[in-house]
Amino acid sequence: MAQRHLDPTAGPVPADALAGYLRAQATEFLRALRLHRETGAGAAASEGSVEAARALRRAARRVSGSLHTFQPVLDPDWSEAMRPELAWVSGTLALEHAHASRLQQLLLALHRLSGAAPFPPQGPAAGTTARTAAPPLPRDRPAPAGSAPATVPAGATGTAPGRTGTAPCDTPAPADGTPGTTDTAGRATTGRTTPARATPVTAGAAAVRTGTMTDAPGRGSTATAAAGTRGSALAVAAGGAVPAPDRGNLTVGAAKAGALLDRQLTLARTRAHSTALQALGSSRFHAVADKVAVLASEVPLSPAAAGADLRPLADAARDRLTDAVAALPLLTAGSPYNAEALIHGLSPDPAPHPQDAPWHQVRLLLRLHRYALEVVHAGRHPGSLLDAGEALDRHRDAAEAAAAAAQAARTPRIAPATAYALGVLHADQRHEVEAARYAFQRCWQKEVIGTL
Amino acid sequence: MAQRHLDPTAGPVPADALAGYLRAQATEFLRALRLHRETGAGAAASEGSVEAARALRRAARRVSGSLHTFQPVLDPDWSEAMRPELAWVSGTLALEHAHASRLQQLLLALHRLSGAAPFPPQGPAAGTTARTAAPPLPRDRPAPAGSAPATVPAGATGTAPGRTGTAPCDTPAPADGTPGTTDTAGRATTGRTTPARATPVTAGAAAVRTGTMTDAPGRGSTATAAAGTRGSALAVAAGGAVPAPDRGNLTVGAAKAGALLDRQLTLARTRAHSTALQALGSSRFHAVADKVAVLASEVPLSPAAAGADLRPLADAARDRLTDAVAALPLLTAGSPYNAEALIHGLSPDPAPHPQDAPWHQVRLLLRLHRYALEVVHAGRHPGSLLDAGEALDRHRDAAEAAAAAAQAARTPRIAPATAYALGVLHADQRHEVEAARYAFQRCWQKEVIGTL
Repeated sequence: MAQRHLDPTAGPVPADALAGYLRAQATEFLRALRLHRETGAGAAASEGSVEAARALRRAARRVSGSLHTFQPVLDPDWSEAMRPELAWVSGTLALEHAHASRLQQLLLALHRLSGAAPFPPQGPAAGTTARTAAPPLPRDRPAPAGSAPATVPAGATGTAPGRTGTAPCDTPAPADGTPGTTDTAGRATTGRTTPARATPVTAGAAAVRTGTMTDAPGRGSTATAAAGTRGSALAVAAGGAVPAPDRGNLTVGAAKAGALLDRQLTLARTRAHSTALQALGSSRFHAVADKVAVLASEVPLSPAAAGADLRPLADAARDRLTDAVAALPLLTAGSPYNAEALIHGLSPDPAPHPQDAPWHQVRLLLRLHRYALEVVHAGRHPGSLLDAGEALDRHRDAAEAAAAAAQAARTPRIAPATAYALGVLHADQRHEVEAARYAFQRCWQKEVIGTL
Repeated sequence: MAQRHLDPTAGPVPADALAGYLRAQATEFLRALRLHRETGAGAAASEGSVEAARALRRAARRVSGSLHTFQPVLDPDWSEAMRPELAWVSGTLALEHAHASRLQQLLLALHRLSGAAPFPPQGPAAGTTARTAAPPLPRDRPAPAGSAPATVPAGATGTAPGRTGTAPCDTPAPADGTPGTTDTAGRATTGRTTPARATPVTAGAAAVRTGTMTDAPGRGSTATAAAGTRGSALAVAAGGAVPAPDRGNLTVGAAKAGALLDRQLTLARTRAHSTALQALGSSRFHAVADKVAVLASEVPLSPAAAGADLRPLADAARDRLTDAVAALPLLTAGSPYNAEALIHGLSPDPAPHPQDAPWHQVRLLLRLHRYALEVVHAGRHPGSLLDAGEALDRHRDAAEAAAAAAQAARTPRIAPATAYALGVLHADQRHEVEAARYAFQRCWQKEVIGTL
C-alpha cells in the first residue's frame, strides 16, 4: 500500500506524543506492579493479583511495541536493550494465564460437544438452553442473532448458536483502547466467560484453574496445585466417569479426555506459575522495573527526534499490517465452511500448522498498528480494530487448544474412547480456527471500507 | 402458507397430465429393467448396469411420490397396494450404492484431512493443488470461487477450497429434472466425483467399491467381494500403514481408520448387493414389475378424476414443504460456524442425531414437491430446487458418513490412533452437515425470493 496518511487533514505529530505515551505506560506498569505486590500477598490468588498481572503485561506490550514502531526517534542502544526484556516479562507472565484459559476452553468445548450443560447453571447462563454451552458474547454485547439473514423468527430455531462472534463486527464496539475483555477472575479472556465452578468435588481443581499467579511463598501455591492435580488424578482412577455432578452427562471418553487435559494443562500451568514467581523475584526483573521507573519520568529520545513527525512511522506500521493481510488467504477464509483449517488435521507432522503462522503474524502486526494509533491519536482508534484483533485472538487460542488436544492424544496407553473424544475435540477447535478466520475476514472488509 | 397457485395465470391441470406422467415413468422403469438385465449379465459390474439401477430407482421414486401427492384422483386400493412395493424396490436398490458412496466419501475425507493427494492425480484432478482433495464441483459447474467476497486475487490464496458447494445457488443450473449427478461408475453421486483408483495393490478393493449390482450369478460377485475384503484385511494385517502408493501420506491412524471403514462398509455393501440380487429375482419383484407394466398402458384413475384439477393437490405438496422448512432452524443454519451440528458429537447416545430428522423430512418433501411440479408443469421446475435438494442430499450423506465413523470407533480393540482419526473424521463430517444446512438455507432464500 502506498503511503497514505492516517488522517490527511491533521498536521504532523511531534515526538512529544510518543514521550507522553511511554511515560503513561511506564507509570501504569509501576502501578500494576505495586498493586500486584499488595494483592498477591496471600496464599490464594485474588482477583486483584490477576488483574494486576494483566495490567503489567498490557503496559509491557505497549512500551515494547512502541519502541519497535518508533525506533528512529528513540535512543537506539537503550531501546534495543529494553525491548527483549519487556517481551520476556510479558511472555513469562502470559504463559500461566494461557494454560489456564486453554484448559477452560477445552473443557467447555467437551461439554458443548457432549450436548451437556457446561456447569450447574448460575448467573447469566441460567436462562439459556441447557443443550448449548451458550457462552456470553464478547464484551457482553447484544447477541448478533438479529443481524443474520432470517426467514424464521428466532423463537422457531429452538437452539442458540454454540459459538460466539461469527458476526462481531455487526455490533457497535467501544473504542476505548481496552485490549480484549475485562478479565475479573482469571477466566478465558478471548470472547468467552464462564460461570465459576463451585461443586464440592472439583473445588480443588477449580481453585487451581481460576486462581492465577500470586506473590505467595512457593510452598502454599504448590500445595494448592498439588491438591488440584490429585483431585483429577483420582477422577481418572475412578474409571474415567468423573463423579462431579457437572460432568454427569459426559460420555466416558469425553470425561477421560477432560481429566487427561486437566492433568496435563494444570501441570503446565503450575510450572508456568512457578516460573513467573521466580521471574518476578529475579534480579533480571528488578533491572527491568528500574529501567521502567526511569522511563516514567524521562524518555531517552534520539537527536533525530527534534522536529520529527511520528505519522510516517505509524503509517509504516499500518502498511506492514496491510501487506501481511493482503498475503492472507482471505478469499478462502471469507467463504464459509471451506474446510481449510482442518486440512492437516490428521497430518503426521506434530508441529503447529504452518498455515496458522501468517495469521499469528498479522495478529502481532495488528497490535503494533493499534498501539501506533494510540500514540498518534492519543488513545483513540476505531473499534473495528478491536474486533479484528479479537478474532485473531480467538484464532490463536483455538489453534493452541487444537494442538493441546492433539498432543494429549499422543499420550501413551490412553483408551480408544479417550482418543476418539480428543479427535473430535481437535477437529472442533480447528473449525473454531476456521470460524475465527471468517470473522476476521468480515471485520477486515469493514475496516477497509471504513477508516483504517 | 396460504393456498397460492404455482402459476396464477395458468388454468387447471386435468388428471390426464398425471396419467401421462405415470405412463412415462412406468415405461422408463420397464426400459431400465430391460437394460439392467442386458448389461448386468457379466460377472463384473458394468457402467450400464449401474446406470440402469439408478434409472430404476429414479422411476420407482417418481411413481411412488406421485401416487402419494395425487392420491385423491387415483384408484385408492391400487395406489395403496402399489406404493409400499415401489418404496421397497427403490430402497433395496439404493442401499448398495449408499454404502459404496459413503465409503468413498469417508476415504476422500481421510485423505483431505491428512493433507494428502487423494489418489494418484489423473484426469481433471491433475491440475489442482496436491494439498486438497479438490473434488470437482457438483455437475461440473464452474467453481463458485469468483462469487465469494474477495479482497485478494484468487492466486494469492494458495489453496483451493477443500469442500464443494458452499455457494451452489450462485451458478446457473440446468432445470432438466435430472435428480443429482449423472453417475457413470458407481461413484459418489452427491456433488462428489473421484478419479477411479487404479493402483495395482488396491485394485481388488477398488473393483468391489466401484462395481455395483449386477445380474451375475451370486458366486462370481461374491468372489470379487471376498477378494476386496481380503485385500483390505491384508492391508490391516500389514501394520495398518496401507502399502498402496496413494496412501503413502496418511498417518498410521488415518490409514488404519481407512482400512477399518473399508472392511466394515465393503462388508455392508456386499450384503446389500446380495440382498438386491435376491430381491430382483424374487416373486415379489416380479409382481411389482407386472403392475408397472400394466401402468405403462393404463392408469387406474378414481371416478373423482373426471374434471378434477391437479393444481390444488400440487399446491398442497408445496405447502407441506414450506411448512416443514419454516419449522427448520434456518436462522441458526444461516449463521456460518454456528457449531450446531456437532453439538452432540460426543453424546453417549449412538442413535442418529435427532436434530437431523427434520432436515431429512424436508429432503423427502422437497422431492415430492419437485415431482408434483414435474406432473403439473410437464417436467419443468426451477433449477434452484435441484440445488436445494442437492444440499439436502449432502446433508443426508454427511450425517450418515459421520454416523459410520462413530460406529467404526466403537469397534472393540482398535488402537487409540485409529480412534483419534475416526473422531476427527466424525467431527469433519458433522461440520459438513452444518455446511450443507448453510447451503440449503442460502438456496431456500433464493427460492423464496424466486418463483417457488
